[in-house]
Amino acid sequence: MIAVVQAHPYPDRSRANRILAAAIADLPAIVVRSLYDLYPDYAIDVEAEQRVLAAADVIVWQHPLFWYTPPALQKLWFEKVLTPGFAYGPGGEALQGKGCLWVVTTGGDDADYDPMGIHGHVFDTFAAVVRQTALFCSMAWLDPFVVHAATRIDDETLYAWGARYRARLIELGGAAAEEAANG
Amino acid sequence: MIAVVQAHPYPDRSRANRILAAAIADLPAIVVRSLYDLYPDYAIDVEAEQRVLAAADVIVWQHPLFWYTPPALQKLWFEKVLTPGFAYGPGGEALQGKGCLWVVTTGGDDADYDPMGIHGHVFDTFAAVVRQTALFCSMAWLDPFVVHAATRIDDETLYAWGARYRARLIELGGAAAEEAANG
Repeated sequence: MIAVVQAHPYPDRSRANRILAAAIADLPAIVVRSLYDLYPDYAIDVEAEQRVLAAADVIVWQHPLFWYTPPALQKLWFEKVLTPGFAYGPGGEALQGKGCLWVVTTGGDDADYDPMGIHGHVFDTFAAVVRQTALFCSMAWLDPFVVHAATRIDDETLYAWGARYRARLIELGGAAAEEAANG
Repeated sequence: MIAVVQAHPYPDRSRANRILAAAIADLPAIVVRSLYDLYPDYAIDVEAEQRVLAAADVIVWQHPLFWYTPPALQKLWFEKVLTPGFAYGPGGEALQGKGCLWVVTTGGDDADYDPMGIHGHVFDTFAAVVRQTALFCSMAWLDPFVVHAATRIDDETLYAWGARYRARLIELGGAAAEEAANG
């Protein structure tokens, strides 16, 4: 099973994350956790979230990037759900070896994410905080799915990104299912 | 005036941030915004925050680092308060040229923040997301005040850090006051 943790605080204003979410919504063997729908009051149900993660083979974090990092509720989810004894530290092996796929949309394009660009660094510099969060929990960091310039590209291109996202999850789900069958 | 934005979700469990906060609490010409006290419900008063920032010469962000980034409510503050037309973009010059001091405590020490250490990178890699947030708002990024291994060092050392923090704000306040007098 693939757990897809989605966090977009303004779904009405999001074309990209809405199209990406729609592209995978009917896949079998995924569980979607839409954080801003579930927890508009920021009161995260830690046990429910941990149960979903424990049952998953692959964990997806899907959100836009605001100020170079995941939205606040996704950040709170990291703080509340990735606890010692569950996600890391003594006895904290619940996520060990699970694949972690970061699906992220950004407003900037390649020229913006450049030492000479408006963001002053290549994109990978900002990826470090998310990647290291996964690695600290002994997850396997998968090649991230990054959609740049998400507010500027047209619908057709976004639907193509949606198809690619769907194919990626099918591939990951198949691999996970196969591994489960062989394991 | 120096605006000190403090964000610690668990003040009872924080020695370091409590000692740092106490070391500067009685300084004249500072305004402290303790986010978790002001907004336990995550409902940030954007206008009130922007008024404080607009009146400040120097802005301090003081918090522990969780999962390599500021606590969730500090992150929400970035998202809600640093709006286009205020902090950046056309007409967004309210913070231009103001000093920005990042006062951050971490659990790790120098050996942890190393390519071969448990966090896989030198600390400055993780600083990029916060520094770039300040720079995007045309603020002047000051040399950060970083207290590593904050959960492990003894009270005496923490009080020494507190004294250094106090001296730093006095120095910054004096410079700001002087600049205001000359401007």
